[in-house]
Amino acid sequence: MQQFSTPAEIRAWTREQRKAGKTVGFVPTMGALHDGHRSLIAAACAECDEVVVSIFVNPTQFDNPEDLENYPNMLADDLGICTAAGVGAVFTPDRDKMYPNGYATFVDVVGNLTDKLCAVARPGHFRGVATVVTKLFNAVVPDVAFFGQKDLQQALVISRMVSDLDMGVEVRVCPTVREPDGLAMSSRNRRLSEEGREKALALPRGLEMANQAYAAGERDSNKLIEILAMELLVHTGVDLDYAQVVSLTGFEEVDEVKDSCVLAAAAFVDEVRLIDHIHLGGPALPVSLD
Amino acid sequence: MQQFSTPAEIRAWTREQRKAGKTVGFVPTMGALHDGHRSLIAAACAECDEVVVSIFVNPTQFDNPEDLENYPNMLADDLGICTAAGVGAVFTPDRDKMYPNGYATFVDVVGNLTDKLCAVARPGHFRGVATVVTKLFNAVVPDVAFFGQKDLQQALVISRMVSDLDMGVEVRVCPTVREPDGLAMSSRNRRLSEEGREKALALPRGLEMANQAYAAGERDSNKLIEILAMELLVHTGVDLDYAQVVSLTGFEEVDEVKDSCVLAAAAFVDEVRLIDHIHLGGPALPVSLD
Repeated sequence: MQQFSTPAEIRAWTREQRKAGKTVGFVPTMGALHDGHRSLIAAACAECDEVVVSIFVNPTQFDNPEDLENYPNMLADDLGICTAAGVGAVFTPDRDKMYPNGYATFVDVVGNLTDKLCAVARPGHFRGVATVVTKLFNAVVPDVAFFGQKDLQQALVISRMVSDLDMGVEVRVCPTVREPDGLAMSSRNRRLSEEGREKALALPRGLEMANQAYAAGERDSNKLIEILAMELLVHTGVDLDYAQVVSLTGFEEVDEVKDSCVLAAAAFVDEVRLIDHIHLGGPALPVSLD
Repeated sequence: MQQFSTPAEIRAWTREQRKAGKTVGFVPTMGALHDGHRSLIAAACAECDEVVVSIFVNPTQFDNPEDLENYPNMLADDLGICTAAGVGAVFTPDRDKMYPNGYATFVDVVGNLTDKLCAVARPGHFRGVATVVTKLFNAVVPDVAFFGQKDLQQALVISRMVSDLDMGVEVRVCPTVREPDGLAMSSRNRRLSEEGREKALALPRGLEMANQAYAAGERDSNKLIEILAMELLVHTGVDLDYAQVVSLTGFEEVDEVKDSCVLAAAAFVDEVRLIDHIHLGGPALPVSLD
């Protein structure tokens, strides 16, 4: 496995692969790799001839400096995981070179995709994500890129951006990977105390309770949200940031579940922000927003 | 010469050229080609093995709907000019496909480069330029792209964007081409009346008068601007939009000309907006903004 730290190096590597007739898959990450990342790398290896993983904790997508500072850093472990998974090249750019003095360019996805859910509590977050993914795509020049469905809003923002800017990259959104007890895998889970780890289960549990109510015929968004909120706030004392039912055609809040919707939520446990969602009705993800 | 209208087609064409070991130069235009464009195409042909010209009147960079509506459209002539100049492929995308329903992604260069000069009178203009150039670069995937120095602020915005977003494209800024009487070539010149065409000469004439004052030792920005403004407003009755002296290291307005500066101006003649500038001291363009 090769490791590169500049756009010119990784771009030259990709160009070599393409010259040899190979396709290149790409898994952008912020490191602290877990089984969710492993599943993305496996999907990339299954579909593409060569796979690139980037490891870069992107400062411009952190609205909170403490969250940035506390973000896990375990590069040696990450490189081991990539090698074992059959990754061809790892891209580990320097923060100073990604955002040098005088840096001034940002990519914004505006409208419905970025006016709700995580965008509200994290101003500038999706601008940071769209900008760094643009930079990473320009450096790696992949054929296909792989994102986790846990970060659903991110995946939709990136899909929109790739389509709007004619990036010529196929975006794959892969299923959320969960711990055996149901908690969605996230690098931030490492920061939970033992007690917090237990409390955090209220999020998938509350979502599953709402899912069962949906299966039993409940279509009222507020009722579904209430079931989730009861489990989080009332029974477990977990701070809910948001819980909303959003249609996947147009990404609007809806009062009643029709077609393809998600119930999405974010909650704070031990000051760690966790997100998760369930899909309610209609065709399964990935969906087209057009 | 081949003509393509979708990103997938032109991207495939470029990939073929690259596979054959050829470099690809790119000249993005809004059509109504003149000798300024010809000089960019010639520079591209001299440096690169194959040349792509795009012809697309980009609606998102027009702040004024009338200006968009009145922008000259002469595609048949343009294609003839490209063929004669040895262009390998022309990219003529459809407006509806460039900005379909639900389009939501924009590229912004923020800060000093876009808070003055043309950015003031044309809100959203440079966002439109940065966005369409990103889309065109993603479709054409050139090695080198060529821009005219007449649109200096645009060239600097694009250079900054290409560097910030790691686009891997070399940007060349080529000298302004002028009519024999000194008027900077522009597709908008076609919209001038005979009388307006005569009046428009006040812009290069006033700039040249300021240039002579500079050569004679004048370093006070306000004095140089006054010389230009006198020629335009007082002697010729031409409406000045702005006249400013800007340092090319940092793109700040300066009171005194030191190092590398430009005196840049925009003026309305027959409701047609014309821009021009002269370089004052220091190293010649192109300059690095880092």
